[in-house]
Order: sequence, then C-alpha cells, then structure tokens
Amino acid sequence: MSLNYLSNRLTELEPYVPGEQPLSSEIVVKLNTNENPYPPAPDVFETIKKFNVNSIRFYPHPESELLKQTLSRFHDVPEEFIFVGNGSDEVLAHAFCAFFSGKKVVFPDVTYSFYQSFAKLFQCQWDYFELRDDFTFPNIEEIEHNTGIVFANPNAPTSIAVDLDYIEKLANQNSDNIVLVDEAYIDFGGKSAVHLTKSLKNLVVIRTLSKSHSLAGLRVGYSIASAELTGALSMVKNSFNSYPVNSISQAAAIASINNFDYTRSNISKILLNRKKLIEDLEAIGFSTLASQTNFVFTKHEKLASTYLYEELKKRGIIVRNLNGVRTTHFLRITVGNAQDCNRLIIELINIINK
Amino acid sequence: MSLNYLSNRLTELEPYVPGEQPLSSEIVVKLNTNENPYPPAPDVFETIKKFNVNSIRFYPHPESELLKQTLSRFHDVPEEFIFVGNGSDEVLAHAFCAFFSGKKVVFPDVTYSFYQSFAKLFQCQWDYFELRDDFTFPNIEEIEHNTGIVFANPNAPTSIAVDLDYIEKLANQNSDNIVLVDEAYIDFGGKSAVHLTKSLKNLVVIRTLSKSHSLAGLRVGYSIASAELTGALSMVKNSFNSYPVNSISQAAAIASINNFDYTRSNISKILLNRKKLIEDLEAIGFSTLASQTNFVFTKHEKLASTYLYEELKKRGIIVRNLNGVRTTHFLRITVGNAQDCNRLIIELINIINK
Repeated sequence: MSLNYLSNRLTELEPYVPGEQPLSSEIVVKLNTNENPYPPAPDVFETIKKFNVNSIRFYPHPESELLKQTLSRFHDVPEEFIFVGNGSDEVLAHAFCAFFSGKKVVFPDVTYSFYQSFAKLFQCQWDYFELRDDFTFPNIEEIEHNTGIVFANPNAPTSIAVDLDYIEKLANQNSDNIVLVDEAYIDFGGKSAVHLTKSLKNLVVIRTLSKSHSLAGLRVGYSIASAELTGALSMVKNSFNSYPVNSISQAAAIASINNFDYTRSNISKILLNRKKLIEDLEAIGFSTLASQTNFVFTKHEKLASTYLYEELKKRGIIVRNLNGVRTTHFLRITVGNAQDCNRLIIELINIINK
Repeated sequence: MSLNYLSNRLTELEPYVPGEQPLSSEIVVKLNTNENPYPPAPDVFETIKKFNVNSIRFYPHPESELLKQTLSRFHDVPEEFIFVGNGSDEVLAHAFCAFFSGKKVVFPDVTYSFYQSFAKLFQCQWDYFELRDDFTFPNIEEIEHNTGIVFANPNAPTSIAVDLDYIEKLANQNSDNIVLVDEAYIDFGGKSAVHLTKSLKNLVVIRTLSKSHSLAGLRVGYSIASAELTGALSMVKNSFNSYPVNSISQAAAIASINNFDYTRSNISKILLNRKKLIEDLEAIGFSTLASQTNFVFTKHEKLASTYLYEELKKRGIIVRNLNGVRTTHFLRITVGNAQDCNRLIIELINIINK
C-alpha cells in the first residue's frame, strides 16, 4: 500500500474481524455471532410491512427523537440521558472518541476485541488488566486507578458478569474518568447498571437491540449516561454523521421496545435452551463457564477447538473459534433454539466418535 | 462541561448542523435539505413490503456484498473499487480518517460545511481555497499543491460544477495526495469522474442514494476508488463498525439501482421544475446561479435572506438559510415538485408585496 496516500493513523489500525456472515445456503445452523434464534416481535413485522415507504425520500430524524422518548420511558431515565447510534459498535466508537482519545483506557485481557480496535483508531493509550484464571474479574484495587475503563457486562466471550457493587466501586475509584459498561448481553443475565447513571456522573452504559430484541439486521444501539456525557457523544456524532439511524430502524426499534413482553418470553426460552445445552455439552466432555449471556464459552477435555470448529463447519454448523492467548482452546457457541442446539450436540457426538 | 471527562479532541470539534427535520405537521413544504420530491422506485416499495423480516435477527452482510456487486455492474468498475457506508457522510468521515488525518487538506471557502467538521474530528491541518466572486472554482494553479483536496461536484450550496479536465489536472497536480470528489448531486448535472478512478490512483469519488434515488431515509452512500484506497477505507470501517448498512437498506438500494430508468425519469422532472423555478424567481427579483443540482442558490435584490426564511417558515415552507461570510445573503432552496415550487413562488410574492 502506498503509504504516502494514507494517514499515519491508518498504519496503526487493527481492524476487528466479525464472525462470518455467509451468503451461501450451505450453513444450516449459525451459532457464531450471538444472534437470537427467535424472530423479531410481531409489532416489528407489522411496522415494516406498513411502513410509509414514500417517507424514505426524507432524511430520518437526526437525533432519533421518537426512539429516544421511547427509551427514556422504558428505562425511566431522562431523555437527555439517551444517545442513539447505528448499532452499539458505533456508539462505542463515538464513546472512545469522546472520552478516551489521546487518553489512557484499560480493559480486560479477555473481552470484546473491538475495544482494542477502537483504542487504536482513536489513538488512545491502552492497556489490559488481567482476569483471574477462571476469567472472573480481579479485585478492584488491582485495576489501574485514574484511567478510563471499558468492559462488557456480562463479559464476552467469557459469559461472566460482575455485580453492581463492583461497577459502583470502579466508578468511584476512577471518578475523574469514564467507566464504560457494554451491556450487550445484560438481558440474558447480570444486573443492569442503567439506574446507576443517575448518581454516577462518570458511568456510561451501552445497549444494543441486536441480541435480546432479535434486531441485529437493523443496527440500533444506544447509550445511557448523564446529560453532560450524552451531549459529548452528540458532538462527536454531529461531527461524523448527522443521520446515523435510518427511518425504518427507528420505527421498528420503537415497536420492539414497546413490545418487551415478547422479548422477555424469548429470553426465557433461550435461558432454558442454555441450561440444557450446557448439560448436554458436559455429558460429552466439555467444560463450560456458568453463562449469563446468550452464548456459552466452552472447552472440550480432549479435542482442540480449531478441529471442532472445522469439523462442525463441514457439517453446516458455524460457531466462533477464538484465537487469543487465553481463549484459543475455547469455542464460543451461541445458544440457538432447541432444534439448533440438538443438531449441534448430535454433530459434536459424531465428531467425537469419529 | 467537566473537561476532565472528555478527550482533548472533543474540545476542538465544530459539529455540522443539518437542516431541520421537523416532526410536526405544520411544515407543509420542505425545501431545506435537498430531498427528492418524488417517491422511491416501485421496486423499492416492493422490496420493503416483501422483506423477510425474520432475517432481521441476523446481522447484515458486513461488506454489503450484494450491493457492491450491483454497484460494480452499474458503474462498470471492479467490485474492489466499491466501498459502501451508512450514508455518504459516513463514507466521507472514513475518508477523512484514512487519507487526511494529521495531514493537510484543503477545500473551497464555500462548500459543504461538514468537510470542516470532519477535518476537526480527525485532527487534520486544513485550509480553504477561495472560489471566485461568481463562486466558480479558481485556476488550478492557485490551489495549494501537494495537499489533500476535497470538494463537492457540483458544489453545494453554489450548485456549480467543474469539468472533468479540471479534476484530472487537480489529481495530477497532487499526485501524492488524495483528491476526494463528493458527487452527491452529480445526477442532476455535471459530468461524473467515476471512470477516471481507473486511471487516477489518487482519486476518490463519493456518491449517495439520498438525492437522485429518493432514499435519504435509508442511509446508503458509497465510494469508488482504486482497490488500494478502497482497502484503506475498509480498514477504517472495520475499526469502527463491522456492519454499517442495515439489511433492509442494502436490499432496497439494490432494487433502486437496478431500477435506474425510474430515477432518470424523476431527474428529468426535477430539471424541468428547476428551469421554471429559476425563471419564476427571476420574475420576482431574485438572481439565481446557473444550477446543476436539485437545488438553487438564490438572492433577492432587496429583501434579506433571513427575513425571507422566517416569513416562509411562518407560512409552512422551510428553505435553507446559510450564514457563511459569503453565503449569508443567499437562500438555498431545494427544487420540489411543480406544486411545491408554485406554492413557494406564491408565498414569496405575498411576502414581497407585504
């Protein structure tokens, strides 16, 4: 690449590599990107089918005003606490720019690897803090003080959550810096820190509709934080893209949030499937971390994760094979519906017996 | 704002302010953001109505693969030349990051004011080059050499285009830097530089479906440039958001591009409306620049633009009132359908006769 064309920043990037999103129909069971096995809410279907397509000639509302109002009611926080973006990855990116650019930020050595990509994009100083051998979070005192902090709660790919007391202490220990909690998987376990944003002025909670709401394809994420921090995110957004969330996604997101009973019933089903999946995996030689997410983090007693990944893929099942220093022996497997989970177990048995 | 929470970068921002996107129904004629007065293509309606909503539980294709293939065929350029983003503003933002971050970039003193916001967000050194008194571009020699360059062609808010010979000379004069041509309005006049990307390795052309395709609400933009430059944009995108374009927008964009005859017929109507609008404005004391866009840049011989803007708004018509040093006496008015244009002229006559 002719570097003279490019900015110095570009040479430092380390882009995130998402799980495969196959266009072919050879993949019959997709358990690699923690998508929801159940369809979006009936009201989402209705909203899209009845959408006034003629209105698409207009720009969407730049601040997703009606969606913000809906989220404000749903979470019982002021509207000025809500910032909406094109998926939670965009919200995270803007948060790194607003809060960590050129500053120090730390995150777990095992966590969502996109945090490192953001840190490089926005030229942060960054460092890891080490999770314990069992992937639980360290004592708070061991985490660097007076620095920005970001982590997922529950964490990915470990599926383990920290409690609210831990988050509160972390925020207090770093009161002049932002603590950013990515709650992508919170609806499947763990306790949300959303209400803590009313008292903790340095806490930012980030949410997505991609997982529990089955809306990954629509790209809607948001954050909840004090009006001051939310205003900072808006400044970045308005220096980047005036209209990040398209009109149909705004409308469908409102429908889904107003239909949370449906989402809750899907979550219940996923938690049942998860329990059975972990038991079934255990019966064939896997040890799985206690999951509070819609995926499991699991390791076979004998067979290498890469081998299992490849063999499953040959059989039309894709899971996520991680290659970090501490994660390389694990598979991250999305909890599918009962049929998907059974199919997975049957194929794993075939592979093990080969 | 407690600056200790925020990055230094944030304090330097100057966010773009988009035209109003009113939620109320009091605005009856919206001529402020250069939206298309005609509906999206029939195939777009069909695509959305028949969309497989269940598939929304999956992430979209991260690289908008099928849309890239469609654009590749449409423009007769290799697929590796195409980069797709969440509206052309996002593509522009990534281009500023990839090509101009920490480097020098120049743009016209009168142009899309978002370029300055991007330059500040990505900590570029930036400067203006002055357009002539009549808002045409200066002699190429007068533009700084050995620097990045960005401009809209046709330019906004002036509505004036430069020819391809000018772009080619600019690219050659700055062969070690990127020349970024924003063709948001190219379908309404001017000659596209798309085919020049095959020979000019430092040329990036940016396009949107928001204007000529009537798809502003769906947020789809793209760029065309050499595979090398396109790869650089992908690196930035994959450090920012894996899935920038939602599934429905990808499908609807494909439908619209494959239905370009419909778009072309709308463009013809808009060009007719534009001709009549300019004549009607002239008859009531406005001078209007010769437009090659779907908007006009116009100034009344007696009445101040702010007064006209306010009076029109009271009457349910919104236009764009600009406040740059050289644009403050002008209104930028979107060319609407025949009815909208007539309504505008009638209300302007009422205001003038007041």
